[in-house]
Amino acid sequence: MLTTTNPRTGVSAATTLEPTTAEGVDAAARRAAAAAAELQRRGREFRATLLEAMAASVENARGRLVAIADAETGLGTVRLNSEVSRSAFQFQLFAEAVREGSYVEAMIDHAAETPLGPAPDVRRMLVSVGAVAVFGSSNFPFAFSVLGGDTASAIAAGSSVVIKAHGSHLLTSQLSLEVLQEAARAVDAPDGTFDAVFGQEAGLALVVHPAIRAASFTGSLFAAESLQRAINTRPDPIPFFGELSSVNPIIVTEGAARARGEAIASGLFASFTGSAGQLCTKPGIAFIPDSASGQALVESLKALTQEARPQVLLNDRIRNSFGVISERLVGAGAVEIAGGSGRSEHEQDTPGEDPSQGFTVAPTLLETTASSLTGELAEECFGPLIVVARYSTVDEVRDAFGQVPRSLTATVHAKDDEGPIITRLAPILEASAGRIVFNSYPTGVRVTWAQHHGGPWPSTNSQHTSVGVTAVRRFLRPLAWQNAPQSALPEELRDGFSTIPRRIDGALVLPQSVPQPVGG
Amino acid sequence: MLTTTNPRTGVSAATTLEPTTAEGVDAAARRAAAAAAELQRRGREFRATLLEAMAASVENARGRLVAIADAETGLGTVRLNSEVSRSAFQFQLFAEAVREGSYVEAMIDHAAETPLGPAPDVRRMLVSVGAVAVFGSSNFPFAFSVLGGDTASAIAAGSSVVIKAHGSHLLTSQLSLEVLQEAARAVDAPDGTFDAVFGQEAGLALVVHPAIRAASFTGSLFAAESLQRAINTRPDPIPFFGELSSVNPIIVTEGAARARGEAIASGLFASFTGSAGQLCTKPGIAFIPDSASGQALVESLKALTQEARPQVLLNDRIRNSFGVISERLVGAGAVEIAGGSGRSEHEQDTPGEDPSQGFTVAPTLLETTASSLTGELAEECFGPLIVVARYSTVDEVRDAFGQVPRSLTATVHAKDDEGPIITRLAPILEASAGRIVFNSYPTGVRVTWAQHHGGPWPSTNSQHTSVGVTAVRRFLRPLAWQNAPQSALPEELRDGFSTIPRRIDGALVLPQSVPQPVGG
Repeated sequence: MLTTTNPRTGVSAATTLEPTTAEGVDAAARRAAAAAAELQRRGREFRATLLEAMAASVENARGRLVAIADAETGLGTVRLNSEVSRSAFQFQLFAEAVREGSYVEAMIDHAAETPLGPAPDVRRMLVSVGAVAVFGSSNFPFAFSVLGGDTASAIAAGSSVVIKAHGSHLLTSQLSLEVLQEAARAVDAPDGTFDAVFGQEAGLALVVHPAIRAASFTGSLFAAESLQRAINTRPDPIPFFGELSSVNPIIVTEGAARARGEAIASGLFASFTGSAGQLCTKPGIAFIPDSASGQALVESLKALTQEARPQVLLNDRIRNSFGVISERLVGAGAVEIAGGSGRSEHEQDTPGEDPSQGFTVAPTLLETTASSLTGELAEECFGPLIVVARYSTVDEVRDAFGQVPRSLTATVHAKDDEGPIITRLAPILEASAGRIVFNSYPTGVRVTWAQHHGGPWPSTNSQHTSVGVTAVRRFLRPLAWQNAPQSALPEELRDGFSTIPRRIDGALVLPQSVPQPVGG
Repeated sequence: MLTTTNPRTGVSAATTLEPTTAEGVDAAARRAAAAAAELQRRGREFRATLLEAMAASVENARGRLVAIADAETGLGTVRLNSEVSRSAFQFQLFAEAVREGSYVEAMIDHAAETPLGPAPDVRRMLVSVGAVAVFGSSNFPFAFSVLGGDTASAIAAGSSVVIKAHGSHLLTSQLSLEVLQEAARAVDAPDGTFDAVFGQEAGLALVVHPAIRAASFTGSLFAAESLQRAINTRPDPIPFFGELSSVNPIIVTEGAARARGEAIASGLFASFTGSAGQLCTKPGIAFIPDSASGQALVESLKALTQEARPQVLLNDRIRNSFGVISERLVGAGAVEIAGGSGRSEHEQDTPGEDPSQGFTVAPTLLETTASSLTGELAEECFGPLIVVARYSTVDEVRDAFGQVPRSLTATVHAKDDEGPIITRLAPILEASAGRIVFNSYPTGVRVTWAQHHGGPWPSTNSQHTSVGVTAVRRFLRPLAWQNAPQSALPEELRDGFSTIPRRIDGALVLPQSVPQPVGG
């Protein structure tokens, strides 16, 4: 029997859920494979309708979802309500993208005389890879879990989904699965469109199952490596999309520190402590000038951190890891200027919580210098901790970036007249991240067409995003038809079909009636 | 010192080439990394000009290229001239695609009030992954080697290229490299844009070099696995795109056999023996009805095969492997109805060649039944060999397909009024291949936008193509900018830039002046 734990108290309770057996995984994967074939066959309009039903079903269950997730994650109802909104929005956005249809990349090259001789008719579009395994994350019980972007993009692609529920929010996952299954019933989706498995063994069995054709994951490098090792034992490799680890460096120029140091301190504090610092895009290292303005900024950040209430982490593993890594950072030479070490009296302030039982930690601010930065000092610490690295010259920052693991994001705060500094930093920013943020903060990832939530290893292991419309590409494969009769083609590739953008004989052609712009 | 071998005689000769040392690989990879950064910086117009210079340079060297490749591959001047044309055409096609610009997938989402609150300006496009290692194939000394589609698509992406020359045509590779370097000089491309390494050890050193950011490969599963194992030892994984192994099943319906059995026999013969059967898309197994029409087709195929002259294979490894696998197929129960076993007198016909020395084999036709087909009987045999599997019912074909390894292509010959049969076959065709060919032959891959030369494992290991314009996607990664000042953006993402297709606030917008359709 599986248990659920309230992170505010550390108290566990029994659930009625059991780890999924090998037979259960096998049955779910087989049903999913059949469902994927049927979802592909039913076409785009059906899948758009299903995604809309998913959005509606999530909204219907909002109250119950937030309540159960709050008890399992301690993230609070404000954050969880906004996450439910994001889940519903994602389903809606993908519904619109499916209708718009350009993501299938329909291309038609008619038979022609070419410089290389007579050439056949060739038509191509992207189709679903088949059934997908999705691994829910600990830190987003909705938007990166059962009701998350991976589920949305897989259904958009025409895939079915078997979700490995995260052990940190099992009841939330079970309720979320019921919410999806209600949507499936509402539009009569094929049996097996959505399923979930519970327990780590079930997750490993899932990724080696022959019927599973791709897997996506948001979580730790360590867990991803274990899944990748399992996948490597398959006779047929499958794509494995991992969103893994990210330090998200931020650079504040002297100009920015002077012009708005106070505002940056406050924004940075909010960004590294929001959701108790448990965001993939949390800034983990901040390069701050070693100047009077920089010192004032650090003092403000220190004051905010010292005054902050302790925060509840998601589970004991994350709490323990926070303790181990923050000690390791201090051991490697970082100086704690605000944090948990001398805070025990402050923790008593928190009403209604018992930090001796719950997974509570104090927001922590460490300091080092850019010139002494090492790989050890740039280790990701999941939770409300940031390392401030003081620098004298931009060259010091450039050199220190070589020690910072490549990340989902890199951020620069600069003044408008500091263009030359940005130009000098651009090569390292572009090489080290998937998204470059200017004069704002990396947390708060906009769900939209142009988003890229991905980056060089170790932040992800692929050339794809897991947030935004283009996340659908992960679960698609090209398929071409040569000299096919019209009846053997999918409708998107037939002559005269004109409701989606298509490339015909090399030229992009828009639909005759252009759909409304897709929101975001 | 490395040697080159004439496959028509089996005689080897010394070259002045040496295996590239570890230091040589390191230097090439470092220069390539610097060149990739510069190629990205110079922008699309420069890369289009470079690709055009590459096309011109190939045409200039046509005579020398064909002569040297003919001596090293035995493929003959007709085929090699057409392959040079294809190489030049590919460079030209990618130049046009780079100018057209939609492959960068430029997207702009302006700052907006959204259902999830105020959202920042986010802009995204695809940029080069960096320096790419390309492994030349044995069977296409131009179009899948130094002057091949991987080189074309990498340069289009903004990558530099370090090519591992195939040991079967070292002098062709060296001359090809000189041809590329001449093009580079003509447009003043950065030092290190093109380089080549020689020898297997150098190839392994290349894929583990930190400066190499992706690798592509066309060749055997065995060689690919060795490279993948090396890549798996990297601290930072890189994408490895392999085009590996393909049996390319073909199904002839009773209606087609009856209506045009003779023509199909002749087309199939040309397809499995063209280039001595050494094409990735060679049909390796043909399902033919067990009927009078099917028998007549097989008899025609047998006669053509028996009358065929022996063919020269590319190297001793391929010749030996042809012998081993054709024996294994017979051992597994296939019956040889035309082939090398009783042909020694015929081989003497070939004037000016000494088959006892050269890598010569006889085209071979084996026969089995669909109902007795096993995985052993569906093994790929590179070279002029095909297995005919006779069937009584379409269900037998559907069942037998489960034994056929998934492939780059699957082909159906049917009559126009056999739509229901195609409908029944469609699911197995779509699941088992990347390109479905109707009433023609899988060999002769059109180089165009809509082409897909890829497929499920083991035909490739990725969701990408290695032929056609979309092959460029392999060497690109998304990069997003949030709230960036105009000066920090690439020109494709700036306000008012309007010469490429872009997606703005969700809506696809075509350039104000539409470029000419790109040929193919």
